[in-house]
Amino acid sequence: MIGLFDSGYGGLTVLKPVLEKLPQYDYIYLGDNARTPYGTRTPETIKRYSEQAVEYLFDRGCRLIIIACNTVSALALRHLQQKYLRDKNIADKKILGVIRPLAEYATTNTNTKRISVVGTRGTIASNAYEIELKKLDPDINVFSKACPLLVSLIEEHWHHKPEAKKILKKYLLPLKSKNSDTLILGCTHYPLMYKDFKRYMGKNVNVLKSGEIIAESLKDYLNRHPEIEKLITQGGTREYVTTDSADSFKKFGNEELSLSIDTVKTDVIW
Amino acid sequence: MIGLFDSGYGGLTVLKPVLEKLPQYDYIYLGDNARTPYGTRTPETIKRYSEQAVEYLFDRGCRLIIIACNTVSALALRHLQQKYLRDKNIADKKILGVIRPLAEYATTNTNTKRISVVGTRGTIASNAYEIELKKLDPDINVFSKACPLLVSLIEEHWHHKPEAKKILKKYLLPLKSKNSDTLILGCTHYPLMYKDFKRYMGKNVNVLKSGEIIAESLKDYLNRHPEIEKLITQGGTREYVTTDSADSFKKFGNEELSLSIDTVKTDVIW
Repeated sequence: MIGLFDSGYGGLTVLKPVLEKLPQYDYIYLGDNARTPYGTRTPETIKRYSEQAVEYLFDRGCRLIIIACNTVSALALRHLQQKYLRDKNIADKKILGVIRPLAEYATTNTNTKRISVVGTRGTIASNAYEIELKKLDPDINVFSKACPLLVSLIEEHWHHKPEAKKILKKYLLPLKSKNSDTLILGCTHYPLMYKDFKRYMGKNVNVLKSGEIIAESLKDYLNRHPEIEKLITQGGTREYVTTDSADSFKKFGNEELSLSIDTVKTDVIW
Repeated sequence: MIGLFDSGYGGLTVLKPVLEKLPQYDYIYLGDNARTPYGTRTPETIKRYSEQAVEYLFDRGCRLIIIACNTVSALALRHLQQKYLRDKNIADKKILGVIRPLAEYATTNTNTKRISVVGTRGTIASNAYEIELKKLDPDINVFSKACPLLVSLIEEHWHHKPEAKKILKKYLLPLKSKNSDTLILGCTHYPLMYKDFKRYMGKNVNVLKSGEIIAESLKDYLNRHPEIEKLITQGGTREYVTTDSADSFKKFGNEELSLSIDTVKTDVIW
């Protein structure tokens, strides 16, 4: 199976295009809604929570785990890879994050080499995007802004309301003057406000469709790594697990992302 | 020791007047910031989290625990009392909530018998205030409104900003037409926006100072129960424990509540 893990609903914006591009595989999505949001917590807490999630998904039979959460990718991906994949001579399982593919896409497609990044406080404070972007191209200028309230607004279904749009506008104000030509939505919740980001940044800024870029990158990865690809079962099944309310999860996935979710299971992962 | 427990910073609005009225005792405050906010989680999750908190405080030597969180008081107080205090012939320890004292004060002081209540989604959905108020006076009319985003706004220090005030105003709109003469702030975070509640509800509505009412009720309780009071050590010490960032906790307590917190310890409670 392919496992996707997020602190809550955000990773569903990654799952959706992944299912569209790669429908043949078996998937399990885990949302840690009982402890969402992750973006304001310390790296130590994020590491502990994501260890539990990764162990759950490996136990459930996943051979490939996508950390569909920028905060975890920024603060814990290397830790998870070192803890669970180190000292293995054979590639029998993999953990992938979402920052690298977005950084690759952004550096390849920028003309002005001026890139803006938005994310949770944890993601922005880690400088993970800046480090990754400059590794790919040292001449890139990176401008970052944490938008910590957006996850709560989205999980509360308030993101369609004017108050949420005003908060977003305030967050984006310092980025407007930077003349960047690319905006990376460095949080998997933010695509749910894609149109608002686009409106406030203006027509000269390419707001990246992060879910689709990550899905395309996964497709490419599986093409390049047949030794991993052959480990993944192809039954076309989808399983949804949350650590809190199954009803709320189903409602969100179906109403906000039209995912046609039938059953959601509640499981305690720690 | 007296233990106070909240999902995060909110319970500090109870601790502050308690320390002012009863400075002689030893206190330990536990904020579960690594899993805040509680208000949107299921009752099962709230029960599990609060069991861990109560066990931690009993292990640390508390004989009296104040659940300084309305969501936990509404959804788990009876469960905690039954689990940890049942079958005891001697009163060697106690767990108290915050709903009962506020309901008592409100029913005693209302003239119109029309009382409004605001709280988290969990607190409001539980009907805990309505049940308690009607138990004290069946003729009371209760009007409730969940304000789920306020905790996130307050924990993010956004409650002084105009966007937070607009969200508050929107939440309170349906209560304005109810002609209640009393508003219960049924969440220990909300006193941090006390002036805004007061302004939007107007001069005919008595917005209860919940922390002070709870503190006065505790003082009264200890007077009426010398067998509990004599179990509590009187060294005048204060200890602060959080499950996440000690720095953020200290900053919040000192800046928002002028608590002169010197040291905060981070501890994992599960």
